Amino acid sequence: MSSNPSFTLRAVDDVVFEEKPIPQIRDDEVLVEVKKTGICGSDVHFLVHGHIGDFIVKDPMVLGHESAGVVYKVGSKVTRVKVGDRVAMEPGAGCRTCEYCKRGCYELCPDMVFAATPPNDGTLCRYYRLPSDLVYPLPSGVSLEEGAMMEPLSVGVHAVSTLASLRASQTIAVFGCGPVGLVCMAVAKALGASRIIAVDIVPARLEFAKQYAATDVYLPPALKEGETKLQFSERNAAAMKAALGIDGLDVVVDASGAEVSIQTGILVAKAGGTYVQVGMGAPQATLPIMALLAKELTIKGSFRYGPGDYALAIALVADGKIDLKPLVTHRFSFEEAVNAFTAVRAGKSEDGKGVIKAIISGPGVAISEN
Amino acid sequence: MSSNPSFTLRAVDDVVFEEKPIPQIRDDEVLVEVKKTGICGSDVHFLVHGHIGDFIVKDPMVLGHESAGVVYKVGSKVTRVKVGDRVAMEPGAGCRTCEYCKRGCYELCPDMVFAATPPNDGTLCRYYRLPSDLVYPLPSGVSLEEGAMMEPLSVGVHAVSTLASLRASQTIAVFGCGPVGLVCMAVAKALGASRIIAVDIVPARLEFAKQYAATDVYLPPALKEGETKLQFSERNAAAMKAALGIDGLDVVVDASGAEVSIQTGILVAKAGGTYVQVGMGAPQATLPIMALLAKELTIKGSFRYGPGDYALAIALVADGKIDLKPLVTHRFSFEEAVNAFTAVRAGKSEDGKGVIKAIISGPGVAISEN
Amino acid sequence: MSSNPSFTLRAVDDVVFEEKPIPQIRDDEVLVEVKKTGICGSDVHFLVHGHIGDFIVKDPMVLGHESAGVVYKVGSKVTRVKVGDRVAMEPGAGCRTCEYCKRGCYELCPDMVFAATPPNDGTLCRYYRLPSDLVYPLPSGVSLEEGAMMEPLSVGVHAVSTLASLRASQTIAVFGCGPVGLVCMAVAKALGASRIIAVDIVPARLEFAKQYAATDVYLPPALKEGETKLQFSERNAAAMKAALGIDGLDVVVDASGAEVSIQTGILVAKAGGTYVQVGMGAPQATLPIMALLAKELTIKGSFRYGPGDYALAIALVADGKIDLKPLVTHRFSFEEAVNAFTAVRAGKSEDGKGVIKAIISGPGVAISEN
Amino acid sequence: MSSNPSFTLRAVDDVVFEEKPIPQIRDDEVLVEVKKTGICGSDVHFLVHGHIGDFIVKDPMVLGHESAGVVYKVGSKVTRVKVGDRVAMEPGAGCRTCEYCKRGCYELCPDMVFAATPPNDGTLCRYYRLPSDLVYPLPSGVSLEEGAMMEPLSVGVHAVSTLASLRASQTIAVFGCGPVGLVCMAVAKALGASRIIAVDIVPARLEFAKQYAATDVYLPPALKEGETKLQFSERNAAAMKAALGIDGLDVVVDASGAEVSIQTGILVAKAGGTYVQVGMGAPQATLPIMALLAKELTIKGSFRYGPGDYALAIALVADGKIDLKPLVTHRFSFEEAVNAFTAVRAGKSEDGKGVIKAIISGPGVAISEN
Repeated sequence: MSSNPSFTLRAVDDVVFEEKPIPQIRDDEVLVEVKKTGICGSDVHFLVHGHIGDFIVKDPMVLGHESAGVVYKVGSKVTRVKVGDRVAMEPGAGCRTCEYCKRGCYELCPDMVFAATPPNDGTLCRYYRLPSDLVYPLPSGVSLEEGAMMEPLSVGVHAVSTLASLRASQTIAVFGCGPVGLVCMAVAKALGASRIIAVDIVPARLEFAKQYAATDVYLPPALKEGETKLQFSERNAAAMKAALGIDGLDVVVDASGAEVSIQTGILVAKAGGTYVQVGMGAPQATLPIMALLAKELTIKGSFRYGPGDYALAIALVADGKIDLKPLVTHRFSFEEAVNAFTAVRAGKSEDGKGVIKAIISGPGVAISEN
Repeated sequence: MSSNPSFTLRAVDDVVFEEKPIPQIRDDEVLVEVKKTGICGSDVHFLVHGHIGDFIVKDPMVLGHESAGVVYKVGSKVTRVKVGDRVAMEPGAGCRTCEYCKRGCYELCPDMVFAATPPNDGTLCRYYRLPSDLVYPLPSGVSLEEGAMMEPLSVGVHAVSTLASLRASQTIAVFGCGPVGLVCMAVAKALGASRIIAVDIVPARLEFAKQYAATDVYLPPALKEGETKLQFSERNAAAMKAALGIDGLDVVVDASGAEVSIQTGILVAKAGGTYVQVGMGAPQATLPIMALLAKELTIKGSFRYGPGDYALAIALVADGKIDLKPLVTHRFSFEEAVNAFTAVRAGKSEDGKGVIKAIISGPGVAISEN
Repeated sequence: MSSNPSFTLRAVDDVVFEEKPIPQIRDDEVLVEVKKTGICGSDVHFLVHGHIGDFIVKDPMVLGHESAGVVYKVGSKVTRVKVGDRVAMEPGAGCRTCEYCKRGCYELCPDMVFAATPPNDGTLCRYYRLPSDLVYPLPSGVSLEEGAMMEPLSVGVHAVSTLASLRASQTIAVFGCGPVGLVCMAVAKALGASRIIAVDIVPARLEFAKQYAATDVYLPPALKEGETKLQFSERNAAAMKAALGIDGLDVVVDASGAEVSIQTGILVAKAGGTYVQVGMGAPQATLPIMALLAKELTIKGSFRYGPGDYALAIALVADGKIDLKPLVTHRFSFEEAVNAFTAVRAGKSEDGKGVIKAIISGPGVAISEN
Repeated sequence: MSSNPSFTLRAVDDVVFEEKPIPQIRDDEVLVEVKKTGICGSDVHFLVHGHIGDFIVKDPMVLGHESAGVVYKVGSKVTRVKVGDRVAMEPGAGCRTCEYCKRGCYELCPDMVFAATPPNDGTLCRYYRLPSDLVYPLPSGVSLEEGAMMEPLSVGVHAVSTLASLRASQTIAVFGCGPVGLVCMAVAKALGASRIIAVDIVPARLEFAKQYAATDVYLPPALKEGETKLQFSERNAAAMKAALGIDGLDVVVDASGAEVSIQTGILVAKAGGTYVQVGMGAPQATLPIMALLAKELTIKGSFRYGPGDYALAIALVADGKIDLKPLVTHRFSFEEAVNAFTAVRAGKSEDGKGVIKAIISGPGVAISEN
């Protein structure tokens, strides 16, 4: 128990298990024994490409940032949790002194220290250190796996509740039925949306979304030869409105990052509606800018999560308004971490179905341990 | 005085003076004798192209929508104004019963009756009828020409005050130094912006903007051979930040409609900032969508103006916070209306300089009449 | 069928059935055959006192304003509903041209024409005329009685959703378990509040609230001899926090109008919280103003309802998020209208229990008709 | 220079100069040599009463919290300022980890460490230590005295800009023409209010306000014998509306804490208007609660200042939109500190005039030093 086994990315497609020192904690920090870690598309992206945008892996970096565990040690000033508490771990710490941290949007902090974003190590290790205000005790009845899932759920809370301010009885479409799209639908359902329309090009994903949280699904047609993307999107938007019997939607969230989804999403939003971009994809996209203007849409970018989002995610699960269990489809031991990444990588392909979320148990933790 | 001379567009590039009947008013309406009418890019666009987007001129239509005049007749229930009052005329009447009209954004009313938007006649005539709540008495000291200019000013109020919610000491860039860009700068100045950066590709326009309301000007470089628009915009944004010594701007307004302005505008907005699209141009534009996401920008489309905008425009002028006089550069009699359109058309070209706003005096009104 | 039987208040405690002419409708109006009308405390207040604040009954006035019915006739321009449609009737029409009507808060219109508010006749008659945008088709599955109940429900929607902006997983206390308090709790439940605390001095009312929508109830202690109201309220607030294990509440709504409720409500709100006053009682109340300041509370007055409230009320019922049926406890025929008022009057006393809402069926309508 | 002379309150009316150790700074802190300190009503209140509400002086406490100085030493991680910089000092540090600190309202932090609020020492000393993000470099042209005045100005910024969200061309009344009332008026002027009405019972204070920032002044009549406070306030509100030719005000700020001001303020606010309580006075006040309800007022408590307020205060002064110089009326050396308190105490009486703000120069600093 004197060391800290970790799963480290050394270079593109080059991962290794290594022993790292156990972190020393300060008086306002806690050391958490990590029990469960979800694997996210961004983890895989670092593995495959070595970077996400300007974040480049230059030095070896421990992977993982969707985690929950048990408090192993607390600093002398910590009163919020005690040793033995089961906690969800918010993986990013702002500087707490910049304009963004102080005015309530720490997700924009330029000095954010975020797990598994270069150059910061991630949570796929035995012991992870973090400020005590970033661990959230899990209510009884909420498992450690669900605790790990609070991270992607917080992304959905931020997009749908905090930014889109979705209210009861509004209508929403979510483009993309991967993990982020699904948690966006779950949040929409918890907030009382009257219609939640899932859009994806893979029928199996739509089926899953319908069983999980969507009230309606929509499968776009194929691109016609000679048609531009925007021409397709106009046709697609019209077909979607006709199929669903709607004039426009109060809220649209794109969790796909695909250009045609972005275009279609803007075209199906109703006048005065809100569109939120949460999916990362191509760095650029051609938008129907005059539709945006004439309908006075509000478009917002959604990046990670901010104040209150983790707490709301946990509350929605604890209150039974969101069920995260169906989202966990694959489980691996720490030793099988490479297999988990391989599975998620495969699941991201267009015909990938079934892999929604892979969870890796911490070193020495049984897969079945909750 | 028994007829109503009007300036009518019959087809593309086919205008005519004609006598129309004097409108009958209802008990809550007023009849205004139109004294001054500004010519706007959209008037010219209808003249040259016969349509703007889906608004197509199918039948003859009187042009003009930026007007002020003197109340000539009032309905029996009208208490807000009396015969002889000098008034600015808000040229669009919502249905007052749809969701948009009732919840405070009548600019989105699908049944809006807007002057000189097909199929509704405009204000380039002697007598124009409108609901009494859409005429605004001009305070003494505010001329009829300024009254006509309340229409474009309201566009700036809507974009900068109502939608961008610009606050004192914030920074703003306005792309495009035509009439709409200039009024946006004027509003920014009235609201206390600390830096107002005018951007245009015509140096003479920048000079005018600097004298008028901008604190800084920026002239973009030329596009390099082989460079994509987005590559240019990234270079341009970096150059703009360096030239002005800024990290990012609180608010960006695009009043140009040009794709490279839109791209550059999004790139120079600071994290958490607001971008407002008020300029109409190409129906589509390629946007740096990941920059929008990672900075959590809010992008809003701005269409015409809504509740309170006209009143605020008049108040800002009456309080001396905005001076509209320098914006009126060309004056024409009603008989010279064709010349006014020709001048505005010429002024819109890239090397056009000098024509900011042409005002046509109503039938039988001397150009010098205030 | 050629006349319009109506239930008219002539003076304090002097009501009469009379025949009135059938109203003529304009082209944008509808004539509704009223089927169900709820009796509200304000109806009784007019009956007993002849006035509410500055609204004084000087001339005979038909009572009633919580109604639903069937469309009997439509004006030539009406497309929103057709003859035979079952509709909820929003009983107040703003002027549509004042600042308040245009900026989205028509409930503040100084020229509001509101049913059964002097000098306007109410809905306790066979035929009632109103603008077509103020009738709301009832979805199948929503009864006419529920349609009548949309009026008090809209009061709750306005207070809890529109003004307090209650969000999922927030905590709320509602002081007063009369009809308005109960609908506020129902809205809070529909919006996903995690705790809904009902407060009343009548145990039977608390029991009802607990079965209906509250998660917790709180019965205040008795006032001690020699204790000021504010001293009582401080003791009460401390006891309430202790009893419920809370530090403070996100939202507090007072639906009682009682001074000690107002005081206690402000004291149990958490720092940064929101307090909404919806209950009408004494015109003045002594408030712990320094607590309000030090906690930076936001206090809002809630008056009737505004844009979107009726639509949301109907949607929440249609979606099954609110059940209005348990609230209707007494039913009367039109001929028994006096008895209905007597019952509500009795039910308002401190030991009154059981009478939550009395519904009067329209002339010639069977009580059991839905 | 090895010690830290300080002005300490030991008990009610018992102050002493004492030598205290020079604080050690951490790597993210700065040590400021205090040059100018304004004396505030709360300092005097502690001197005279030994407490403010629940904040009780139990142990000796250095007084003073409105200060500016010169950076004397910086921690190893500090990049924001350097030794020798002239800085305004924000005197309160939140915990940075509680819900309030993180969501953008650190003024509500329950663990706030605020200068000269028990048990924390204040700034009336030679060397004061604070986190580096709480010192704000003063632009050239802004004096150290003005730097000290940023503290009360931030109170005005918080009340008028952050909470009341006053916009250009709105109308405002400020009750109370002491230092806080005056800075509220200054902020209102900087934000472009069209009318700024100063209310006070001391004519000399009204004169000063008129010369300083108010557009109008109003002197209430005397209380009549037998009249309740609320009866007086109703008469007063009617008289005020008549005298000023207004129907109601968009924004009302009470900076007096007097019950009749609070009552009158609520009565002169227009429907839908905003009332902000910034003045501390009696802990309770009787409010016209039905007026608040029927007008749907928003009432907010304003406590100190939060994120962005200090920065905006400095920007408004640096931009020339606010002139703080006229507010400094009395100057004392450090050795004369007792006299400063005596003067402020006298100036707070009803017939007090002239003493708006007393500034004490830091130990060893000439009064004339800027």
